[in-house]
Amino acid sequence: MLSFQGEHILSVNQLNRDAIEMIFAVAKRMEPYAKKHKRTRVLEGAILANLFFEPSTRTRVSFGTAFNLLGGLVRETTGMQSSALAKGESLYDTARVISAYADAVAMRHPDAGSVAEFATGSDVPVINGGDGPNEHPTQALLDLLTIERELERYGKNVDGFHIAMVGDLKYGRTVHSLSKLLCHYKNVKFTMVAPDGLQMPDYILDTVTNAGHQIELVSKMEGNLAADIVYQTRIQEERFPSQEEANKYRGGFKISQAIYNAHCKPESVLMHPLPRDSRLDANELDNDLNSNDNLAIFRQVQNGVLIRMALFALTLGVDNVVEKYEAEVPWFSRKRNS
Amino acid sequence: MLSFQGEHILSVNQLNRDAIEMIFAVAKRMEPYAKKHKRTRVLEGAILANLFFEPSTRTRVSFGTAFNLLGGLVRETTGMQSSALAKGESLYDTARVISAYADAVAMRHPDAGSVAEFATGSDVPVINGGDGPNEHPTQALLDLLTIERELERYGKNVDGFHIAMVGDLKYGRTVHSLSKLLCHYKNVKFTMVAPDGLQMPDYILDTVTNAGHQIELVSKMEGNLAADIVYQTRIQEERFPSQEEANKYRGGFKISQAIYNAHCKPESVLMHPLPRDSRLDANELDNDLNSNDNLAIFRQVQNGVLIRMALFALTLGVDNVVEKYEAEVPWFSRKRNS
Amino acid sequence: MLSFQGEHILSVNQLNRDAIEMIFAVAKRMEPYAKKHKRTRVLEGAILANLFFEPSTRTRVSFGTAFNLLGGLVRETTGMQSSALAKGESLYDTARVISAYADAVAMRHPDAGSVAEFATGSDVPVINGGDGPNEHPTQALLDLLTIERELERYGKNVDGFHIAMVGDLKYGRTVHSLSKLLCHYKNVKFTMVAPDGLQMPDYILDTVTNAGHQIELVSKMEGNLAADIVYQTRIQEERFPSQEEANKYRGGFKISQAIYNAHCKPESVLMHPLPRDSRLDANELDNDLNSNDNLAIFRQVQNGVLIRMALFALTLGVDNVVEKYEAEVPWFSRKRNS
Repeated sequence: MLSFQGEHILSVNQLNRDAIEMIFAVAKRMEPYAKKHKRTRVLEGAILANLFFEPSTRTRVSFGTAFNLLGGLVRETTGMQSSALAKGESLYDTARVISAYADAVAMRHPDAGSVAEFATGSDVPVINGGDGPNEHPTQALLDLLTIERELERYGKNVDGFHIAMVGDLKYGRTVHSLSKLLCHYKNVKFTMVAPDGLQMPDYILDTVTNAGHQIELVSKMEGNLAADIVYQTRIQEERFPSQEEANKYRGGFKISQAIYNAHCKPESVLMHPLPRDSRLDANELDNDLNSNDNLAIFRQVQNGVLIRMALFALTLGVDNVVEKYEAEVPWFSRKRNS
Repeated sequence: MLSFQGEHILSVNQLNRDAIEMIFAVAKRMEPYAKKHKRTRVLEGAILANLFFEPSTRTRVSFGTAFNLLGGLVRETTGMQSSALAKGESLYDTARVISAYADAVAMRHPDAGSVAEFATGSDVPVINGGDGPNEHPTQALLDLLTIERELERYGKNVDGFHIAMVGDLKYGRTVHSLSKLLCHYKNVKFTMVAPDGLQMPDYILDTVTNAGHQIELVSKMEGNLAADIVYQTRIQEERFPSQEEANKYRGGFKISQAIYNAHCKPESVLMHPLPRDSRLDANELDNDLNSNDNLAIFRQVQNGVLIRMALFALTLGVDNVVEKYEAEVPWFSRKRNS
Repeated sequence: MLSFQGEHILSVNQLNRDAIEMIFAVAKRMEPYAKKHKRTRVLEGAILANLFFEPSTRTRVSFGTAFNLLGGLVRETTGMQSSALAKGESLYDTARVISAYADAVAMRHPDAGSVAEFATGSDVPVINGGDGPNEHPTQALLDLLTIERELERYGKNVDGFHIAMVGDLKYGRTVHSLSKLLCHYKNVKFTMVAPDGLQMPDYILDTVTNAGHQIELVSKMEGNLAADIVYQTRIQEERFPSQEEANKYRGGFKISQAIYNAHCKPESVLMHPLPRDSRLDANELDNDLNSNDNLAIFRQVQNGVLIRMALFALTLGVDNVVEKYEAEVPWFSRKRNS
């Protein structure tokens, strides 16, 4: 991918290392705007259709905020289920219509492949905000950007780092996509910590192995968390055949500060795709970790805004003029804790 | 209607030919802004209350987009059912409250007459976005604007043209309103193609006849589609007494490219109020027509934005200064396919 | 409270008379912007998360409109129930995430204390838009501002005025909060008009008495409405143990123009927190009062926008520069009835 302008972002499979690095370079330039140190009006007059066929508050607000931070406006389209599609409209028609109203589309849908199908009818760039069990490329990109930035704090690189992925590696979409993205890097060591029955699917393991990476498959956390990045996951209960089946795994891999002290390295960084299940019987990352500087889960959220800003700037072809359209606003440095 | 400023747009019955032509003149001036060739900030600081008492994604987004394109902001008010009205609030009170928050209201409601009732309490212009089986004036206007523009491509005028209306002419609100609007024009020829039981109601036929137009009532498509405009409709299943009753008509008038070739003229333009039911047992306009240049259904969508922009500019009294408040923005000609 | 910048507004208990007067001073400066006589861009680039865990159209739109009127944008987050919280996310985590997207949060939630709990995780100011039966401070402030302004019309002050509170004083959150705020003023006379079983709770009565005010408890309207302000309420049916229990009180205190003429003073001002139940069996304030100049219920709505604008300006620290960032816009004086 040499130019992003006018392209859809549907899958991590579209992205090679050059593309990833281009996105990250733009994302980092977005930080002064996201932090309200500066203001840009580069997307003034642009409209985002935030097209959610299933609820996901955080992803929806993150896309909308990213567009707003570039100066654009957002039209929300929640509750699509009860609308034209129930009257037999094809996704192609919906796309032709919605793209007549908007300059970009962020879309989430429960069915795998639906966002790509929609994109065939869209005149404007479509960014996949999750199509069921299939793809969620902005999550994978924000995870990778977080990894890069957290490693950088300790003078390390993505090439040659060690990641422990923990929990539901079978149904967890984010660890699949992240693993694929990491195939564009060199000599990564993976420790896959999952109970029997929830290990990483073979096709991902094969892809990772073919990229020359090293994989260790283990079934317990003890002795296996001394990685640079520990990526904890939620049991994807909604994807299990039954609640009973899901309950067998619930609470199997709780990480608390005591576990961290016993099994992680002092600089091990903790990540999670969020939401974390804080109910005591699940408790994937205990609240006693909230004061641990290596808990990066809320920095992931901030990086997600930067990734989405970058993708909008790139696909709308304004990444080179973001700075040109800066404007003075009166409340730059008014954020409470900064 | 000599001036639109401060007026409500509730029904096509408010509009005479002068009013229609004024709206269309403003609508055409909106096209550079809708296409993002130019930017206007004429409604900066204005707020639209997008007040939907039943879901309709396309209409809601179209109104919101139109307001955004003029530089205004939108407050969405979906899910009104569960709100104050359930506590016994009158539509008059709701209108007094909402119009204290907004500068214009676009409203959809399932009950006939409800938008007009609301308007009695509103201090700001109310535009009817559909009140159940009753009125949907912006749809009628966008249909008529599309007819005018499509005929113009072939050197024809609305005066003297030939339209075939096809399908559910009994329950189809759009063909009723469009027929009324066409009464302000001269020598239109109507071919009403409907199965027994779904023909156009007598009061519409009488109105059309009294306007001096020519009507032919037929029950099959064969031999009856050689019109300048073929206006296909959806069976309005939700308005039938039962699903069984609706099913009797389902799929009765499928138009495909083969049917087009056999029964239309080479320059017959195909319209539809959307959504089109693309399920194979209904298939009102087959997907093989998507590459037919005379399929105007998505141009209808674009004209809908222009009509709504024009109505906002007119009712808010800024139609004369839209151009005066143009602003430079950096991504004019960045739309993917233009 | 000496400075509002960066503070959460969770409860009327935070506010002393100095704080109230500071808010009111800013609120009154907001009026030219709310009336569209002037435009300010002081919050350009700021984003409000309008975070509603239960529907409340009027409150939600009022907060969003207030933010828009200062030049800021709004991200709506309705339907939170079905989202991350259902997956076990804590309010603390939700707050950390949402405050990474927004510069201010307006929040409504059905559970008492939830907004304060959320605020512990928020990096940005949180304004309580109602947490169940507990607090709704912006309602109390708009009620008090309305009282001050209405009394001013007749040359009176809050110090020394007479208020009659009528109806469901037990469950009505607004009369509790208003009573507390009035404790910062002097020599107020309260007439509490409630049926047996729905009188004002003792702890409120004690607070009011300790502030040196005079209270009269009565159970019927006749002879007891000759106050400067008559504050009518709705029976809070949803808070009763059963609908049958609520029905016993329904329609117990109907005020019409005839009642007004018989029992109020000529300058008695009528208030209500809205929505008013206009169904005939409830009919708290009859529609025949709509032409009574002393019916202030829709002025309360307008004052609510001013209060919310003031709180945003104060908590975001821009109250001193609102005027500095004025901009010319083309439709100043176009409001229909002004």
